[in-house]
Amino acid sequence: MIELVLVGIGTGNPDHLTLQAIKALNAADLILVPRKGETKADLAELRRAICREVVTNPATRIVEFDLPERDPSIEDYRARVESWHDAIARIWGQEIDAALGRSGRVALLVWGDPSLYDSTLRIAERVGRGRALRVRVIPGITSLQALTAAHAIPINQIGAPFLVTTGRRLRDEGWPDGVDTLAIMLDGECSFRTIDPTGVTIWWGAYLGMEDEIILSGPLAEIADQIVRTRQEARAQHGWIMDIYILRRA
Amino acid sequence: MIELVLVGIGTGNPDHLTLQAIKALNAADLILVPRKGETKADLAELRRAICREVVTNPATRIVEFDLPERDPSIEDYRARVESWHDAIARIWGQEIDAALGRSGRVALLVWGDPSLYDSTLRIAERVGRGRALRVRVIPGITSLQALTAAHAIPINQIGAPFLVTTGRRLRDEGWPDGVDTLAIMLDGECSFRTIDPTGVTIWWGAYLGMEDEIILSGPLAEIADQIVRTRQEARAQHGWIMDIYILRRA
Repeated sequence: MIELVLVGIGTGNPDHLTLQAIKALNAADLILVPRKGETKADLAELRRAICREVVTNPATRIVEFDLPERDPSIEDYRARVESWHDAIARIWGQEIDAALGRSGRVALLVWGDPSLYDSTLRIAERVGRGRALRVRVIPGITSLQALTAAHAIPINQIGAPFLVTTGRRLRDEGWPDGVDTLAIMLDGECSFRTIDPTGVTIWWGAYLGMEDEIILSGPLAEIADQIVRTRQEARAQHGWIMDIYILRRA
Repeated sequence: MIELVLVGIGTGNPDHLTLQAIKALNAADLILVPRKGETKADLAELRRAICREVVTNPATRIVEFDLPERDPSIEDYRARVESWHDAIARIWGQEIDAALGRSGRVALLVWGDPSLYDSTLRIAERVGRGRALRVRVIPGITSLQALTAAHAIPINQIGAPFLVTTGRRLRDEGWPDGVDTLAIMLDGECSFRTIDPTGVTIWWGAYLGMEDEIILSGPLAEIADQIVRTRQEARAQHGWIMDIYILRRA
């Protein structure tokens, strides 16, 4: 039996690691570290740094692999992602077969938490096809929690709901009915510009938990342009950006 | 200046603690530990156990205080909670004044994460009235993350939103429009019984992260009664229960 442990590592601050995550990494026979394209090189380096810092078990092998790219010839977005997940699952499978055979424990470091807008669980499910595999999840601090912590705000109003959704949905469907607080993820296009800003407050953050963390907050009508500008400059400077925000209407 | 650090400690598994939380506790001059009523005695004991285990700084003082009860003579729910938060803030203020005077660092251990259906930030805001106070938040693993980890599921479907809401809202307003995944918190009444279970899957968990963790999942129509029964029995056995669940409709 192979045990595949998906370890949430938080959002780039090595101190986001939980004791449970550290124990899981040290209990692994194999840790698989993806190498991404150069623009995200610092994230691969962060995974390496975390392993160097907390993995003290000399029996734990750390193996890097090149993450495949999405196939641009597949036009349909969903099909392209499915094919990409298949390709990643094949590589995980090959690495597991080569290093462990049919028995052992393999860990993967997952940005944030494996439950939240992350494909790792879906890839793991594929690795389990035709293999005796058990998947275990270690929760980690999400970017949403890093955002609320940085701003020192609760995400919900008392007894009230909040919706977690994507930039695309906000652009395409506008502000959803029945909810006054939105957390927007996966938004590469500053989709907050597409809504009526009247009475809306935004709490925005980029590189949350990392040294380069930037946060901004205020009335959306007043601060939207500053966020757009800040985001553009930071992205140009770093070569990449990850950001997230909360919108609340009065 | 007083620095008030709200430290998310996760959901009862001491291994949910992050390295950041451990550092924050050890950097505190004072840690305030609330003593609740007897039925929740194990949670106070858990906070004590966490302090015993991770606080190694001999200069850190740990002070317990009795959490006031809500005043049953105040009929309005909101007013009752406001008055209760005022009373807690007064006690925090007194303890801080007594132990630190006008300068120092005080930490509080917050169940889960201070951002999610938690009143600590609102109480801290009251403590800051008339005091030079800076509030800092250390994120912690939430019960929602402990739930998805225990079931090894993602909370969202690909690119889709999810709504985090309360049992009361689900009872009073039914399934909200435009979203197929709900996370239900603060539900003492198994409100999942009030909705049409056709095509709905539930992932339920109680005492998440703790030794007594119980999880159940399946089609709501088939498993609702079992969850109600399991919850009743567990509550009778332990004297208290904390549970949470995710609902997803096809």
